[in-house]
Amino acid sequence: MGVSLDLTPQLRAQLQGWLAEDLGRGDLSAPALQGCAGRAHWIAKAEGRFCGGVLLEPLLHQLDPRAQVRLLVAEGAPVMPGQRLLELEGSAAALVAVERTALNLAMRLSGIATATAVLVAELAGTGVQLADTRKTTPGLRVLEKYAVRCGGGVNHRMGLDDAAMLKENHLAWAGGVRAAVAAVQASAPWPARVIVEAETEQQACEAVDAGADGVLLDEFSPEALLALVPQLRQRAASRVGAAPVVLEASGVQPEPEQLAAYAATGIDLISTSAPVTRSRWLDLSMRFAG
Amino acid sequence: MGVSLDLTPQLRAQLQGWLAEDLGRGDLSAPALQGCAGRAHWIAKAEGRFCGGVLLEPLLHQLDPRAQVRLLVAEGAPVMPGQRLLELEGSAAALVAVERTALNLAMRLSGIATATAVLVAELAGTGVQLADTRKTTPGLRVLEKYAVRCGGGVNHRMGLDDAAMLKENHLAWAGGVRAAVAAVQASAPWPARVIVEAETEQQACEAVDAGADGVLLDEFSPEALLALVPQLRQRAASRVGAAPVVLEASGVQPEPEQLAAYAATGIDLISTSAPVTRSRWLDLSMRFAG
Amino acid sequence: MGVSLDLTPQLRAQLQGWLAEDLGRGDLSAPALQGCAGRAHWIAKAEGRFCGGVLLEPLLHQLDPRAQVRLLVAEGAPVMPGQRLLELEGSAAALVAVERTALNLAMRLSGIATATAVLVAELAGTGVQLADTRKTTPGLRVLEKYAVRCGGGVNHRMGLDDAAMLKENHLAWAGGVRAAVAAVQASAPWPARVIVEAETEQQACEAVDAGADGVLLDEFSPEALLALVPQLRQRAASRVGAAPVVLEASGVQPEPEQLAAYAATGIDLISTSAPVTRSRWLDLSMRFAG
Amino acid sequence: MGVSLDLTPQLRAQLQGWLAEDLGRGDLSAPALQGCAGRAHWIAKAEGRFCGGVLLEPLLHQLDPRAQVRLLVAEGAPVMPGQRLLELEGSAAALVAVERTALNLAMRLSGIATATAVLVAELAGTGVQLADTRKTTPGLRVLEKYAVRCGGGVNHRMGLDDAAMLKENHLAWAGGVRAAVAAVQASAPWPARVIVEAETEQQACEAVDAGADGVLLDEFSPEALLALVPQLRQRAASRVGAAPVVLEASGVQPEPEQLAAYAATGIDLISTSAPVTRSRWLDLSMRFAG
Amino acid sequence: MGVSLDLTPQLRAQLQGWLAEDLGRGDLSAPALQGCAGRAHWIAKAEGRFCGGVLLEPLLHQLDPRAQVRLLVAEGAPVMPGQRLLELEGSAAALVAVERTALNLAMRLSGIATATAVLVAELAGTGVQLADTRKTTPGLRVLEKYAVRCGGGVNHRMGLDDAAMLKENHLAWAGGVRAAVAAVQASAPWPARVIVEAETEQQACEAVDAGADGVLLDEFSPEALLALVPQLRQRAASRVGAAPVVLEASGVQPEPEQLAAYAATGIDLISTSAPVTRSRWLDLSMRFAG
Amino acid sequence: MGVSLDLTPQLRAQLQGWLAEDLGRGDLSAPALQGCAGRAHWIAKAEGRFCGGVLLEPLLHQLDPRAQVRLLVAEGAPVMPGQRLLELEGSAAALVAVERTALNLAMRLSGIATATAVLVAELAGTGVQLADTRKTTPGLRVLEKYAVRCGGGVNHRMGLDDAAMLKENHLAWAGGVRAAVAAVQASAPWPARVIVEAETEQQACEAVDAGADGVLLDEFSPEALLALVPQLRQRAASRVGAAPVVLEASGVQPEPEQLAAYAATGIDLISTSAPVTRSRWLDLSMRFAG
Repeated sequence: MGVSLDLTPQLRAQLQGWLAEDLGRGDLSAPALQGCAGRAHWIAKAEGRFCGGVLLEPLLHQLDPRAQVRLLVAEGAPVMPGQRLLELEGSAAALVAVERTALNLAMRLSGIATATAVLVAELAGTGVQLADTRKTTPGLRVLEKYAVRCGGGVNHRMGLDDAAMLKENHLAWAGGVRAAVAAVQASAPWPARVIVEAETEQQACEAVDAGADGVLLDEFSPEALLALVPQLRQRAASRVGAAPVVLEASGVQPEPEQLAAYAATGIDLISTSAPVTRSRWLDLSMRFAG
Repeated sequence: MGVSLDLTPQLRAQLQGWLAEDLGRGDLSAPALQGCAGRAHWIAKAEGRFCGGVLLEPLLHQLDPRAQVRLLVAEGAPVMPGQRLLELEGSAAALVAVERTALNLAMRLSGIATATAVLVAELAGTGVQLADTRKTTPGLRVLEKYAVRCGGGVNHRMGLDDAAMLKENHLAWAGGVRAAVAAVQASAPWPARVIVEAETEQQACEAVDAGADGVLLDEFSPEALLALVPQLRQRAASRVGAAPVVLEASGVQPEPEQLAAYAATGIDLISTSAPVTRSRWLDLSMRFAG
Repeated sequence: MGVSLDLTPQLRAQLQGWLAEDLGRGDLSAPALQGCAGRAHWIAKAEGRFCGGVLLEPLLHQLDPRAQVRLLVAEGAPVMPGQRLLELEGSAAALVAVERTALNLAMRLSGIATATAVLVAELAGTGVQLADTRKTTPGLRVLEKYAVRCGGGVNHRMGLDDAAMLKENHLAWAGGVRAAVAAVQASAPWPARVIVEAETEQQACEAVDAGADGVLLDEFSPEALLALVPQLRQRAASRVGAAPVVLEASGVQPEPEQLAAYAATGIDLISTSAPVTRSRWLDLSMRFAG
Repeated sequence: MGVSLDLTPQLRAQLQGWLAEDLGRGDLSAPALQGCAGRAHWIAKAEGRFCGGVLLEPLLHQLDPRAQVRLLVAEGAPVMPGQRLLELEGSAAALVAVERTALNLAMRLSGIATATAVLVAELAGTGVQLADTRKTTPGLRVLEKYAVRCGGGVNHRMGLDDAAMLKENHLAWAGGVRAAVAAVQASAPWPARVIVEAETEQQACEAVDAGADGVLLDEFSPEALLALVPQLRQRAASRVGAAPVVLEASGVQPEPEQLAAYAATGIDLISTSAPVTRSRWLDLSMRFAG
Repeated sequence: MGVSLDLTPQLRAQLQGWLAEDLGRGDLSAPALQGCAGRAHWIAKAEGRFCGGVLLEPLLHQLDPRAQVRLLVAEGAPVMPGQRLLELEGSAAALVAVERTALNLAMRLSGIATATAVLVAELAGTGVQLADTRKTTPGLRVLEKYAVRCGGGVNHRMGLDDAAMLKENHLAWAGGVRAAVAAVQASAPWPARVIVEAETEQQACEAVDAGADGVLLDEFSPEALLALVPQLRQRAASRVGAAPVVLEASGVQPEPEQLAAYAATGIDLISTSAPVTRSRWLDLSMRFAG
Repeated sequence: MGVSLDLTPQLRAQLQGWLAEDLGRGDLSAPALQGCAGRAHWIAKAEGRFCGGVLLEPLLHQLDPRAQVRLLVAEGAPVMPGQRLLELEGSAAALVAVERTALNLAMRLSGIATATAVLVAELAGTGVQLADTRKTTPGLRVLEKYAVRCGGGVNHRMGLDDAAMLKENHLAWAGGVRAAVAAVQASAPWPARVIVEAETEQQACEAVDAGADGVLLDEFSPEALLALVPQLRQRAASRVGAAPVVLEASGVQPEPEQLAAYAATGIDLISTSAPVTRSRWLDLSMRFAG
């Protein structure tokens, strides 16, 4: 079944812009390739999760609408060094012009998927999900969050507009948790969830009482959470409609023991930017057929 | 004096696109901030080189033309944990809306500058420069290469259009080194340099004889280079006009001993994507004034 | 305190495009205005809710950055025929060039706000909210939904990406309610709500059991809903976490008796496109000072 | 033969933008549709004139280039409730993603065509044409004016750049009718017509004498026009070249008696925004095949 | 009083694109200018008409919003070698970055204005106007036609959408002059003029009879026109409303005797692409203050 | 063989914009062509070099993806009056809509290629190349420089970003030749060449000593160059690595004797804007099949 990526017109326009970034006024090496057709394949040069191969065809088709790509590996699948990932053929000029942009995307995304999968494996069986954040490379938000899904993680909100997160400064400017939540609920679309980032137990409790759909518990210790989580669940149960609250821990070091300790506290999600901010690109390479 | 970044109309348009990526249909938290003004500052949370602060003002001015930014640290300067980097003030809504995009850029760029500086320090005194590659995040080519300069590295070509690099497949399709170089030189602007990526000694020698301005020596051992470099210099000296050749090693592991070994071979440049593909983001944070 | 509109870079770019649509290659009447400065004001020519005045200044500033606008009436406020709404001054050429685009927007949005307010008044005191739909004029989604808020309504989802609505065809293709909900929940960001459009009681029940956050009850009679709503609430209460469900009626004629009948069924929302698809523009006019 | 619409690159780009408005970061319901193909058709749910079906194919092809549309009804043709309008097939994801945007356009345009046709029918046999105005929804100018043609109306100028209309304020700033007309004629392309909006008999006479190609007679009574029109025709006949003048009435209530009264005054055109500003959307629906 | 140019948002966007074309990824010479402010002026290096100076300020403001430009010569004014045209000051980097784009525009436009003025002078006193064509440099249509006005010429239609010109092939495909004119009149906005390009006397007569607003008489000799023009005027006088026809000669060699011969035939306009297709750029230069 | 043009996404987007410039809101003549298919060909009406035919197909495909173009003449080839250049067929509406834009491009580019070829012929056998400059029509830089190649010339830098040229003002602001060269070399990508524009012998010598890759000798007499060139070559030979310098003369009148005199001085290049700034468009015409 695999993880799916919606190739929106917006994303296709970005692909065009990224090609243009590399091509500039035109590939100076093109005169060495005039008229040739070529075949090539991609291989993995390291172990990890492969992601981003689906972007190659729309990139290639910008320059050669008759070029063909055959994917050999599902998006998000584990790959081994030397494994052949996909095959492509088309005009040599198009293959060369697209190579770097396509590989840069796939290497970056595969690196994120790989790093995500490592953390997700640590949480296996705990019922706690690994979520990403808005710390993503500008321009690549949709793709990097797709890579997190490919690695087994779940996406947090995609931007400032699909859910509201109220942070310390919102609470201060609005005059407290209750006022801030009320202001946002009054104007947001009804399906939009309101989440409060809490740095103290009191803020967390106020957030639940004020009707927040979720509470992000920032830099709490596992011990503190063990005590706080049941209390917050109980408060939520006594809200109108007994609406449950989603509890999320952040500021967690992406290390096995830490993850295990937090997973045992009864929270729903651990959110971390680590797969995006601390991962290496997965080494991939394009090989031209002899 | 510092390192300079040209804020071209193209770059300003990208900043606008990156803001739009995060804002989408509008910041749902904005109603909690209506009418407030705010002050904040950025601090470093880790040691490294700071880079990307100059992008904050043009980002902020998109939403609040009267907002102000005061930079406290030069681009590329070393910073310590807890160090205050810049101060800003403006409408609270603008500060909140811009925060993530501006920090994401600066954390990514500072991470690259930091990683570059580490490698550059290894080469200090050797006369060999550290160069980047075209392995950059799509959309961020100009900025990531700027970050490399901030870390003390030198940029390689910016795209397919400002210098020609002929790789294995070009040589094969064009029918050899000499034919490939000739085809490109016949059509490229005269100031554009032609570089050949050589994987064997023979290719390297042919490249020099064919008139290449540079030779990228890919995955040669330091020992092989020690023998090859003088030979290539000599061939270059016997070319028409005695035009020198720029010799560049790639495929070098970014480790101290490796760098030292390669630096001792007489090459001019070591090119590596490591600061881009293997670096972590430098941890930075925005603090709102009480 | 008024309803707020986030003037995102995206919205500002649209304003520029709309000006360009009217201006084309340039205002042919401009030579009759060269060098003149002008003052003008807007008046209402009919009773209703005013909306869209905040767009005038960013439109004007595209052509005359020193032009000034003074708003006399809050967004969403009721206005009477003859009432002065705002005053503006700037270069005559800019005032003339912007007039039609600005008024077209405000007349359209005020018409929607006015029609919304009429329906919202019918629901006053019932605790049921009036929600809009995705039936909006292409290009004006954000603005028309803002006009609905100005009229006292609440926004439903803004697009296909901030909440998932599963309709008859989704259920058929995915192989039933449960499969469809599961597929969507597995890949959507965690804050995104999943809503099922139900056309039968059975679908509605299955939707609740499958974990839907909301159920849109399409073209049910008030009598049918009276019986169904408590049943759905009860099923929701027995879900994991006792998560409540948002119940929404659609296909309701926008007439007083109908609205009252539906409001009495215990649902949460009535969603209707009527303020967008059946409203007239509110008549507004710009008067130049003598 | 039907009414034709020029699918310019500009219009195709707008279609892409409108799809993007609804799709945002991607259709969250898409995972419920993966890999399915679908068939569907559109039906009318009310009586009127159908318009906008030709936009479906270019919209669909943005997401599925192999999707197919079969139009069953000509643009501008009268349709009855239940009538099948067109059939389409393609990937289920594309059909679902395009549905709302395509229907929103067609419902809006069909509503305008329907309202126009009603008014045009009132003028049948009078020799007077119904013209539109620049009161159109921002972004939809070309399409809404196309809908007016589909309803049997004639388009007035398309923007500020294809004909010059001098209004009260132009006359004031330029120093009178003659000066304003002269200034515009001196710089406009020769094929561009110059029209004067007259609010008094004197202005109308001056406009003809000054060489205006058309005079818009705003808010004159039918009685006043009966007397004025022959006088203006006579003045035109005595101009250099005996150039005739096009006489247009505006401010006419879109009611049968009013239209008849104005049509009997000898004018050439009645211009009204009513089909755009007072029409309801025509109810259309997409049905998926079982 | 000078010729005016409407600085539409569209034109401003083009200016930005033209700057980007030259700047690319950034001005490599900028590090030699860091922090400097500069003053400069433009001088004419040849005799002619100056045009395009008004574009300098909006170009400069893209890079330095505080830069200042003082125009010393009106648009369209005659200038002599050595004459100072304008003065500017701002950041040195902005002055250097804008120099080439601004001068390229002004030199091209001034060349067109100069060549136009020469031809217009030949027609002085004849009552015949010199009109341009759609032979303009792609992207510069609005500006090159503005330059024609600066040289004393009159603009023909601006594009395919503000007047209809029916040429030989239209007549053939539509089945004759009358059918072609009728088809276009039935769908064009009422203010749009319909012009027929006639290559024979018969076509010219048919065009007038069919109701054409203008007839372009292509490659007729002066003698042929002398006989034909009165005949066409007479036919026009017997049309409904005695609507006059605009008669235009094309295919005229831009030489004094030819122009005089055609001007004496009674036509209204001579249309020629010569100022656009045969003119040299006027030599202008920017001098930096010592 | 042949000269190649890289049809980058950027260039394709420009083609779309240029079509839009002419089409505006749609071709008013289209209703006279509805449903027709057509065939046509292009012919030369003057002697010269043909260039720009390759742009016709991508232009046509924007409006009719099934249209076909058959090129009969290679880009850059000499053509004679009456010679058939290419054949095309497709929908009549597309052929008519594209005609002017495609011909305007080809006539402009062919004019440049023709003028270039004349100058290049003067230099035949001298070993000196003819180079262009940055004096190109805004928006057409890539195409006009392609036309120069088609005429046998060589391109100079494409913009401010692919090579650095230091002019009088850079030298003044930076504090001398050496400082300016050093500042630029310190930040430019290593493959970017640094060129100094010298107006005196001393500047030229300093430029070589400072390490410039090229020296543009502006407005030197042939006699002065005869003495200076050997001196500069000698200085270059004594630089580190004996790096040669490219010597370029500018300010040369494009006349045979002048070109010959300069070609005899030992320089490498003569750079001139004459083919761009002083050339006429080559007369081309489209003929529709009977």
